[in-house]
Amino acid sequence: SRSINLAVIPGDGIGQEVVAEGLKVLSAVLPQDVKLETKEYDFGARRYHATGETLTDADAEALKQHDAILLGAIGDPSVPSGVLERGFLLKLRFLFDHHVNLRPSKLLPGVETPLKGEPAIDFVVVREGTEGPYTGNGGTIRKGTPHEVATEVSVNTAFGVERVVRDAFARAQARPRKKLTLVHKNNVLSFAGHLWTNIFNQVAEEFPEVTTDYIHVDAATIYLVTDPARFDVIVTDNLFGDIITDLAAAVSGGIGVAASGNINPSREFPSMFEPVHGSAPDIAGQGKADPTATVLSVALLLRHLGYETEAARIEDAVSADLGERAGKPARSTSEIGDALAVRVAG
Amino acid sequence: SRSINLAVIPGDGIGQEVVAEGLKVLSAVLPQDVKLETKEYDFGARRYHATGETLTDADAEALKQHDAILLGAIGDPSVPSGVLERGFLLKLRFLFDHHVNLRPSKLLPGVETPLKGEPAIDFVVVREGTEGPYTGNGGTIRKGTPHEVATEVSVNTAFGVERVVRDAFARAQARPRKKLTLVHKNNVLSFAGHLWTNIFNQVAEEFPEVTTDYIHVDAATIYLVTDPARFDVIVTDNLFGDIITDLAAAVSGGIGVAASGNINPSREFPSMFEPVHGSAPDIAGQGKADPTATVLSVALLLRHLGYETEAARIEDAVSADLGERAGKPARSTSEIGDALAVRVAG
Ligand SMILES: CC(C)[C@H](C(=O)O)[C@@H](O)C(=O)O
Ligand SMILES: CC(C)[C@H](C(=O)O)[C@@H](O)C(=O)O
Repeated sequence: SRSINLAVIPGDGIGQEVVAEGLKVLSAVLPQDVKLETKEYDFGARRYHATGETLTDADAEALKQHDAILLGAIGDPSVPSGVLERGFLLKLRFLFDHHVNLRPSKLLPGVETPLKGEPAIDFVVVREGTEGPYTGNGGTIRKGTPHEVATEVSVNTAFGVERVVRDAFARAQARPRKKLTLVHKNNVLSFAGHLWTNIFNQVAEEFPEVTTDYIHVDAATIYLVTDPARFDVIVTDNLFGDIITDLAAAVSGGIGVAASGNINPSREFPSMFEPVHGSAPDIAGQGKADPTATVLSVALLLRHLGYETEAARIEDAVSADLGERAGKPARSTSEIGDALAVRVAG
Repeated sequence: SRSINLAVIPGDGIGQEVVAEGLKVLSAVLPQDVKLETKEYDFGARRYHATGETLTDADAEALKQHDAILLGAIGDPSVPSGVLERGFLLKLRFLFDHHVNLRPSKLLPGVETPLKGEPAIDFVVVREGTEGPYTGNGGTIRKGTPHEVATEVSVNTAFGVERVVRDAFARAQARPRKKLTLVHKNNVLSFAGHLWTNIFNQVAEEFPEVTTDYIHVDAATIYLVTDPARFDVIVTDNLFGDIITDLAAAVSGGIGVAASGNINPSREFPSMFEPVHGSAPDIAGQGKADPTATVLSVALLLRHLGYETEAARIEDAVSADLGERAGKPARSTSEIGDALAVRVAG
């Protein structure tokens, strides 16, 4: 019989609330024969303040035993910038080799976009997750003096670029429009740019059905607000992906509905699924957070584990729920979760 | 008597057409007693194809003799990506130490924005122009093999960061709202991020009237589409500035009206003013290009050289012209230039 052994990391702020709803919907959607085991882990600001730890070796070992990880949000203003990012979020991406950072953007019916004309937004960004300027390479000399020099090194390998580009081509191939756009800045960042561009062109030969194009990252931000419907699948580097996926979330209904997966396609290590939004301490504990992004992240998680039918059921439920929101009074976090749980079960 | 000794670089594609209109408006706005001398230089794709040169030492020496440079656009698909960017545009920024890359964004009356609700956009981005990942530091090993590694090094110095941050504070201080936002990614790019953040906080103490805040670059793209009116002055690194100013141009009326200055505030070397748009080879030679961005760049040029009244006259003329466009048939490049020349002269 089938089973899912899930690590659950509610984290900080609204993370707690939205993860509870994600799990509610997950339980409701799974067929009887699938055994769901969950284990909750306490990571984030509270643990950091209590113990000074962000993610120990033992923690990492424990997480490795799971099939997948569901994360709410990590971060709090009380923790210095970078500590939880480098010490937990990025550490996990690197440790578990989450090289495919998957971020779909779809403007669902009933959802407000800041853009005029209600464009037909439906694309996926495949962001590289383990290289680029995120590696922590670099350093500082003469710190705090007028002669300080600080460097950040973007590291890009053929190995790392090829595997994510290949993944993106496969995803484009499987979609109706079969279109893949490389976003980079190869006219200025020529070393990394040539590597990305060459590998992109090479892998393209293996996917003759996929239409390809190239756009500089600065121009990509223009298209994302003037013609987002032009995009189908985008593949890009870690930093450019970080930037354009926040913009993509903003134009396709906001971070309240933006899901993401930190994926290791080999399944050698568990992949991690999380809403794009942060811990939003200003509204934490008030039942105001929209759990939709987390619920959609659960759908990505299910798809990754092979539960395509269940993933699609969740996505359909979310579409239906969003479509009926207009003009109705705002619901609480758990009311939205309840409604989605009912829909997926039905 | 006063004089302006201007280097004119029409460049490629529509560069030729828009620069002609920029000069037309410049001549019309200048008082009788100001002697305008212009010298045209042939740089860009044509010269590159004819001679293989992008910018020789002799060229640079000649340009240095001018008070300022007006550039149309450089670039053509027939030239490999990066050649003219590194060989001309960036070379000039570095040679002439254009460390303040100034990019105002203002949604003028009558101009269409892709955003709902016609937000009151009026901010200036001060983008660092000589450091960051633009320095060309980095390299490639095992090129073309499956073991290729390509690096890009972002170089940030206290000297370089402080001067641009100080310039941005002075600009914020001079504006009614007196607000300055630092945009970076200091939670991930911690070496450069700490340098920027520390210097920003230090310089802030000298400008007690200026309100400050900090936003990560990814979140900044969200604000630029959901609440662009929140920004007054933004200071940021070279690459982040490249990305967010294209987005800023898109939301505030498009690159048809986006002006920029590559400024050396010391005036040791000439500053260069150019529209944010490129050479647009698809519409070149057809009289279809909007010269407004170039004309607004001429205003920045005049302000830099101390002609504040004339700069403001151009900006007012552009506002008035844009405000009367709605519902009228499209005009040609030179018709728009003529109309603006008449307005500034009147
Ligand atoms: C929190 C931060 C480290 C992270 C990133 O930059 O990747 C976040 O912005 C994201 O996009 O997941
Ligand atoms: C053409 C390119 C080198 C340049 C840049 O990246 O700075 C352009 O995008 C700009 O913004 O001026």
